[in-house]
Amino acid sequence: MGIEIKEKKLKKPTSELRFDLVSKNWIVIATGRAKRPEEFIKQERIKVTVEKKDCPFCNLATQEKPVLEYKNEAGQNEVTIIPNKYPAFAQTGLLNERAEGPYSIMDGVGFHEVVVTSDHNKSLAELPLSQVRRVIDAYQERYLELANEKFVNYISIFHNHGQEAGASIAHPHSQIIAIPVIDPDLQGSLNGSRLFFETRGECVHCKMMEWDREDKQRIIYENKEFVVLCPFASRASFEVRIYPKEHHSYFERIKDMEKDQLADALQVAMSKIFKGLNDPAYNFFLHTAPADGKDYGHYHWHFEILPKTSILAGFELGAGIEISTVQPEAAAEYLRGIK
Amino acid sequence: MGIEIKEKKLKKPTSELRFDLVSKNWIVIATGRAKRPEEFIKQERIKVTVEKKDCPFCNLATQEKPVLEYKNEAGQNEVTIIPNKYPAFAQTGLLNERAEGPYSIMDGVGFHEVVVTSDHNKSLAELPLSQVRRVIDAYQERYLELANEKFVNYISIFHNHGQEAGASIAHPHSQIIAIPVIDPDLQGSLNGSRLFFETRGECVHCKMMEWDREDKQRIIYENKEFVVLCPFASRASFEVRIYPKEHHSYFERIKDMEKDQLADALQVAMSKIFKGLNDPAYNFFLHTAPADGKDYGHYHWHFEILPKTSILAGFELGAGIEISTVQPEAAAEYLRGIK
Repeated sequence: MGIEIKEKKLKKPTSELRFDLVSKNWIVIATGRAKRPEEFIKQERIKVTVEKKDCPFCNLATQEKPVLEYKNEAGQNEVTIIPNKYPAFAQTGLLNERAEGPYSIMDGVGFHEVVVTSDHNKSLAELPLSQVRRVIDAYQERYLELANEKFVNYISIFHNHGQEAGASIAHPHSQIIAIPVIDPDLQGSLNGSRLFFETRGECVHCKMMEWDREDKQRIIYENKEFVVLCPFASRASFEVRIYPKEHHSYFERIKDMEKDQLADALQVAMSKIFKGLNDPAYNFFLHTAPADGKDYGHYHWHFEILPKTSILAGFELGAGIEISTVQPEAAAEYLRGIK
Repeated sequence: MGIEIKEKKLKKPTSELRFDLVSKNWIVIATGRAKRPEEFIKQERIKVTVEKKDCPFCNLATQEKPVLEYKNEAGQNEVTIIPNKYPAFAQTGLLNERAEGPYSIMDGVGFHEVVVTSDHNKSLAELPLSQVRRVIDAYQERYLELANEKFVNYISIFHNHGQEAGASIAHPHSQIIAIPVIDPDLQGSLNGSRLFFETRGECVHCKMMEWDREDKQRIIYENKEFVVLCPFASRASFEVRIYPKEHHSYFERIKDMEKDQLADALQVAMSKIFKGLNDPAYNFFLHTAPADGKDYGHYHWHFEILPKTSILAGFELGAGIEISTVQPEAAAEYLRGIK
């Protein structure tokens, strides 16, 4: 009966504007345009088949020299980090901002690296847990090294899976980009988190998580240290986030035991998305405090996973408001049920 | 010889960070990842063939009752505006923001309409100029009507072309969404424009356009009233904008003679993109002052056209910085040459 009431509650609104407490963005949940969760399963992503002999990441000798290598006990590669052969940022240049007429420009100085797991086909959803754990080790180790580079103020760790999500190479890989600037969109979220902390004396993410864990509607999974949930103001259908339960601002300070738990949470999340949405294309990324040496004690690091369930079109690009067609509560209920 | 120098100048940097004076966003021009303009021609977009008998917009009798109809002298439909059958916003609901735990939520009240041109296949690039002009008439007329609705504070007019750009129906159409809220991203740009005006005493868009017209590198086309250009801080390869040369803040106040010139500029822009990039998928949208009754005399309305030359992936979504692989100057040079 509880379920019936909930179903009814879920289906009533055709369109809702939800406010993101951190970014201050409005997002739209338009269930009038909804597909049922099951319909997403039918969407087949474009699968690019590349043979191992032609795969750059199966042939690391053809790539730039690794900056990090983890091997297993048998001496086989588990995780390798290499400089990106076609980097979006260059390691040389001047950091000075210079004028060009009324405009401002600087050299795109930064690091752009690729985190390669050894299996040509298996994504994080399918790898052994021990290897997922090694990926997290690699993220942390390389983050700490890059944060020491003097012009690096922000480090983005992200993963694109599938052509629709912008992955140009099929072999599973994450990327790390370390740059001198912090974008104002991101700054907006950092400021939102800071303002909440200063005016309310608590972390906005802790506050939301506390409510979500009590409310239960949006929770997908919990382990000892982490919560996997669909955020109240989801930017896309089936958006999933992973938060440490304790208030931690800096991902790079994660401890060994927490890394075990994060590997578990990440694999459960990816596996539910893989099975529940038929191996969809997706992007995920880490949101953590910048590496600019300032105090971000108000912030709460987390991973955001965005399955490619829709395309940002004219309204999203023009008016800045993202539209999701599945209620986060329905998405969480669906993913909770996927074993 | 002039060309040789320019070519050399264009090819030097592998990565540049350019600052958007209005939004305060950084964008990256990463020519190290570049394709040459000609390579975009080879990309074939997914073409969905729907027969006229199955096309909802060829069978308007099956749709909602039109809110605007323009016919030609022979009594045939030229432009029709209908309510969207699957609207992202609903016309009923309460505007009050209400709390749900720590969250804020309101009903998604608004209008969502579709602007249909009669030809099943021809996009704005191929329609007769007179019909493009009628589309602009329709945008203006409907904008003025919706702006009078008391809860409408922002009106977005946009056009999605092709499946990759989020168009779910192949028959060319624009959309109009009228809503009660202004997104903070958009507010950021409005504030950027206001701050420049207040501190410098001039319009930031006029200032940029003055430089661009003198510099010529980014100009694609000009007529008496409008400039078509690739913006200095392009969000995507081949981004194109159309600006009125005179400082005008409110699109809806456009005069008849200006509409003739806008139709010409819009068609030239769309036609160069159509021919030069092999009928690509694209989004375009109008950026104009909000309809909330406040003074936006500092703003300068314009159209932004974003050919779907890339996908927003983990870095763009996570770090908020968009990467373009073609220098705007090279894109403009290429499109200038397309007849």
